[in-house]
Amino acid sequence: MSDDDFIDLRSDTVTAPSDEMRDAAATAEVGDDVYRDDPTVNELERRAAEAVGTEAALYVPSGTMANQIAVHAHTEPGQELLLERESHIYRWELAGAAKLSGVQTRTIDAGERCVPTPEAVREGLVDEDLHRPGTGLLSLENTHNYRGGKAVPVDRIAAAAEAARDAGVPVHLDGARVFNAAVALGVDASEIVAPVDSVTFCLSKGLGAPVGSILAGDEAFVEDARRVRKLFGGGMRQAGIIAAPGLRALENVDRLAEDHANAERLAAGLDALDGVDAPAPDTNIVVAHTEEAGVPAESLYAACKEAGVGCVEFADYTTRFTTHLDVDETDVDEAVERIGAVVDDLRD
Amino acid sequence: MSDDDFIDLRSDTVTAPSDEMRDAAATAEVGDDVYRDDPTVNELERRAAEAVGTEAALYVPSGTMANQIAVHAHTEPGQELLLERESHIYRWELAGAAKLSGVQTRTIDAGERCVPTPEAVREGLVDEDLHRPGTGLLSLENTHNYRGGKAVPVDRIAAAAEAARDAGVPVHLDGARVFNAAVALGVDASEIVAPVDSVTFCLSKGLGAPVGSILAGDEAFVEDARRVRKLFGGGMRQAGIIAAPGLRALENVDRLAEDHANAERLAAGLDALDGVDAPAPDTNIVVAHTEEAGVPAESLYAACKEAGVGCVEFADYTTRFTTHLDVDETDVDEAVERIGAVVDDLRD
Amino acid sequence: MSDDDFIDLRSDTVTAPSDEMRDAAATAEVGDDVYRDDPTVNELERRAAEAVGTEAALYVPSGTMANQIAVHAHTEPGQELLLERESHIYRWELAGAAKLSGVQTRTIDAGERCVPTPEAVREGLVDEDLHRPGTGLLSLENTHNYRGGKAVPVDRIAAAAEAARDAGVPVHLDGARVFNAAVALGVDASEIVAPVDSVTFCLSKGLGAPVGSILAGDEAFVEDARRVRKLFGGGMRQAGIIAAPGLRALENVDRLAEDHANAERLAAGLDALDGVDAPAPDTNIVVAHTEEAGVPAESLYAACKEAGVGCVEFADYTTRFTTHLDVDETDVDEAVERIGAVVDDLRD
Amino acid sequence: MSDDDFIDLRSDTVTAPSDEMRDAAATAEVGDDVYRDDPTVNELERRAAEAVGTEAALYVPSGTMANQIAVHAHTEPGQELLLERESHIYRWELAGAAKLSGVQTRTIDAGERCVPTPEAVREGLVDEDLHRPGTGLLSLENTHNYRGGKAVPVDRIAAAAEAARDAGVPVHLDGARVFNAAVALGVDASEIVAPVDSVTFCLSKGLGAPVGSILAGDEAFVEDARRVRKLFGGGMRQAGIIAAPGLRALENVDRLAEDHANAERLAAGLDALDGVDAPAPDTNIVVAHTEEAGVPAESLYAACKEAGVGCVEFADYTTRFTTHLDVDETDVDEAVERIGAVVDDLRD
Repeated sequence: MSDDDFIDLRSDTVTAPSDEMRDAAATAEVGDDVYRDDPTVNELERRAAEAVGTEAALYVPSGTMANQIAVHAHTEPGQELLLERESHIYRWELAGAAKLSGVQTRTIDAGERCVPTPEAVREGLVDEDLHRPGTGLLSLENTHNYRGGKAVPVDRIAAAAEAARDAGVPVHLDGARVFNAAVALGVDASEIVAPVDSVTFCLSKGLGAPVGSILAGDEAFVEDARRVRKLFGGGMRQAGIIAAPGLRALENVDRLAEDHANAERLAAGLDALDGVDAPAPDTNIVVAHTEEAGVPAESLYAACKEAGVGCVEFADYTTRFTTHLDVDETDVDEAVERIGAVVDDLRD
Repeated sequence: MSDDDFIDLRSDTVTAPSDEMRDAAATAEVGDDVYRDDPTVNELERRAAEAVGTEAALYVPSGTMANQIAVHAHTEPGQELLLERESHIYRWELAGAAKLSGVQTRTIDAGERCVPTPEAVREGLVDEDLHRPGTGLLSLENTHNYRGGKAVPVDRIAAAAEAARDAGVPVHLDGARVFNAAVALGVDASEIVAPVDSVTFCLSKGLGAPVGSILAGDEAFVEDARRVRKLFGGGMRQAGIIAAPGLRALENVDRLAEDHANAERLAAGLDALDGVDAPAPDTNIVVAHTEEAGVPAESLYAACKEAGVGCVEFADYTTRFTTHLDVDETDVDEAVERIGAVVDDLRD
Repeated sequence: MSDDDFIDLRSDTVTAPSDEMRDAAATAEVGDDVYRDDPTVNELERRAAEAVGTEAALYVPSGTMANQIAVHAHTEPGQELLLERESHIYRWELAGAAKLSGVQTRTIDAGERCVPTPEAVREGLVDEDLHRPGTGLLSLENTHNYRGGKAVPVDRIAAAAEAARDAGVPVHLDGARVFNAAVALGVDASEIVAPVDSVTFCLSKGLGAPVGSILAGDEAFVEDARRVRKLFGGGMRQAGIIAAPGLRALENVDRLAEDHANAERLAAGLDALDGVDAPAPDTNIVVAHTEEAGVPAESLYAACKEAGVGCVEFADYTTRFTTHLDVDETDVDEAVERIGAVVDDLRD
Repeated sequence: MSDDDFIDLRSDTVTAPSDEMRDAAATAEVGDDVYRDDPTVNELERRAAEAVGTEAALYVPSGTMANQIAVHAHTEPGQELLLERESHIYRWELAGAAKLSGVQTRTIDAGERCVPTPEAVREGLVDEDLHRPGTGLLSLENTHNYRGGKAVPVDRIAAAAEAARDAGVPVHLDGARVFNAAVALGVDASEIVAPVDSVTFCLSKGLGAPVGSILAGDEAFVEDARRVRKLFGGGMRQAGIIAAPGLRALENVDRLAEDHANAERLAAGLDALDGVDAPAPDTNIVVAHTEEAGVPAESLYAACKEAGVGCVEFADYTTRFTTHLDVDETDVDEAVERIGAVVDDLRD
């Protein structure tokens, strides 16, 4: 099959920049951002802060860097980082919290709730004493990636955050897809972010920018974060070239609803397949369980790739499919068809 | 009350050295152990290795250092350390694994089993890939301190260890009280240690030595560990002075049965108190729950201290009492009496 | 004065991307580089490796990240990093070697030679023993930034590198401006790189790209480096958007000669000022000493900024001026005039 | 030759405890020092603080641990540690500053002065900015081990310390042998310590205790240090057993003069050998250079060991001999005789 025919549902990071974004890159006014001279980056940081309702924001090369800077800036080595057991920072960031920041992770299994209850947070907080390091940071995630793009309601975030902040512990939100959450919940992103001290969000996922993420918080935090960004090697020069498409990406918030509708359609299609369980998604991430069909994720991944559908293995019998702005209804229907054929083929 | 009257059940670390131990210290043949010239240390290391059936052993100032050296020597920064949720290394060693070794902790809640099932181990192991650090070490604990001095059966240790080693992951045993486990289980300590790659045990707990712990394993591991000990500042000079009582301590293994009998007597006495739940212990650690009596551990601790009984707060309504060679049956009965009076007083 | 009138000699990082580069960004074929699907990044990495004669190369957001990845990938925590006393990695990278990699720095003052003699390297190498960590990496720099953009001859690099490699110690070259060195020395960059194991070079300095640097070496090294890049948060998505201008930047090597000619003209102009000592530069970096004139660098910097010339303070009486593709002969002459007026003004 | 005949000049760490010390160990009143219940340790810490004129002190297993705790407690990761190029912390502590504390070392070559001039200190201090970590600690050493047990005059220490403290940077003194310095200079140790914020001294070197060192400073510092000691695994239990000989060791200060006289006698004897250069020592460390005789330190070390004299290689043609309380005038003369024969034998 031709490459053009490939329906890439591996991630919403795969979106190609639109013509408007490319044009923005080509015509961006730039300067040296390490000297803070890039007007486009400055504008992006202003607008990004506005979008999530914080005082300030910092443009960084990746969501991982945004999260790791947050951990580094909020904590001291030897403290604990309290976070959900399946959160991205814990699962997929190469143990950066321990390696780059000397922080011990303590996990809470929040299950389908995605965010721990305030009781669980209080139980997970550790006071500093002669034998114990004390908790330095609570990190939450919304939408929750591994648990299927779940949009966590504002009050659940607020309750968990309050439990930590009451104990003097700051709260970070890994909101890589926080605008998907906002759209799904029908609230402004700033409402989700209001109860926390800092937030990561990605321009390069559903919003469609080619490169970059945002770390936002108050002025003092962002000032600290800027220094940690330098340490981690995230200081870029005429970054306006990629910040300009990032600015356009901020206009894509509303259209995330289409991705969610497509994901729902996709989930319905997959769930209808014999032996496949694909719960209706909150946002743009569909998780399909194929244990009943006897199809391991590893085989499904390989056969889908062959059949022209990109996906990601999540667990032994669990596979993730993600919708995004390069995928429309027709693609979804075609994808369901192809995956159906693959599952029939592999079924034992 | 006079100090002499104080019944100190805070820990088995509080034991005063016996006259034989003091005499051993006074007459020890010594040398500079950093140059490996101390014959008493060398003898202790030989005998300690023998006692747990390993090739070699290293004398270190504390159990915490033994454990942290093991983590450092077995892992690389960025790898994961898989361990039980209430294990000593995770709870009470100041996040050393993250801070000194850059290792991310992943915890398994093994509950009353104390050691994870092989299935739980396999599930907890992480393969190295582009996003994940890979597991560098599995650490087990026997007896399990926080869970009440539970003696974990050999086959449970072996099954967990096998699950890790089959995946190429080494296994450390925090056997601070491994001889208590051996006595309780009626096996030789070497049987408990056989399935693992390294073991910590303390001379300064139930065995009664004033100072020091042992880290044991094969020759190559102990060679590495010696270097890490130097890095951590654990290289001592004429350490024979404290190694000599340590040698005597190795002769105290059999008498641990008395501590266990006393602990059983103590638990029975406490459990008979109204509103107190003190399950029969496996070894020398008694854990008393006083929620039913409405007595918080904090109040119990303070009132016991006043009344001449030493103990340790473990959780909101949970208190630990530990027997050891400076406590006999009479002390136990007296302690029960005093604690009973205290509980009556505090009961709401 | 209008901004347009400002002659920015702070750094060659300030260059605005050319129309060709902007066009390349706008039309770049892209994909998700974390999945290694971005054809433009792949092409850039191929061409970059070719340009310095290595097997492979990796595109990263900054020169600092390239250097810090190299330190991380070549060493183990506790080893030593041997490097020149005024090198960029030691002076201006926020102690990343110690903080991110746990490596102890050992410095050699190479003076105007910029690269230590082989004897100095041999003396600086430390063998691993019970008390000493052993040397894990020798790092060299060419051109040498702080010492005035000195182009270090190939045989000097080769001799230092050989001394390290003979002892089994790998060698990294911070060649942020290695093409300036190549042009100044009249050799191919690959000749400079041949004796070392890895090299950093920047697309965003004299070559004029908006964003990005290259870390190059053999296949196995670059494979390791890719993982460390992920850890540090340097994995970007449709990075082709900025890799495309980077590809164009590789065509700018030959024109660096113009920057060097302009720098020579600038140095001559400054040196002719009363009380100013500005030695003839090897490449595009002019260092002016104003002690004789009694003008501190801090005052010179501020007054120059006011007068429309950008520069950088290097030491109490030392200031750096850098030429680049946005500066021509006329700008240089105008800059000399303005600086001359400033110095006259400030002279005590 | 019998072991008894061996004249051990490797280090003053090799001294065997005296009968008084052994007796003190045997009869020490003890308790659990982790609970701060050991009266002998408490007494030692009080007396040690008194001896160097600080508010408080902490007993630790080794001089390396004392130094590494000081670095950890005074600094934050990413800061710089400024210290002399041949200091013990930099040369022989396994890069602990970088590995355990994430601190970048910056060295000053103070030559025979042993302690940098205030100008050199000021030049070595780095201000924190966007690119630079800032200096967190200045560390000095007295006596200076590698430079031959040089006793550094009080005003030299004071001047260097003042330069740092004026800039808000704390100062640590590695005074492993600070009492040797005090005796050689004819001052009280507290005078040497007065200008600094913390000091390490060893009970187990010239003072003759079997095990242990002291880290002293003000109350707040020692409180922090106690926590870091726990982290590093230096918390010991009935440490009174070794603290008791440590208390006796504090009475040995005055007799260090004998070691110095013996060292002078030894140096004179060695210097008189053909081709051997052994400058008159300040304290108890004799450094002999044998380049003129054509005798490498490695050969000298091996042949001396064979001939019944212990020493330590310092550099290619430099060997260290150390006097201590187990060595008297007769031993010194015999050692000179044996070394003389060895040198004659090896001379080329």
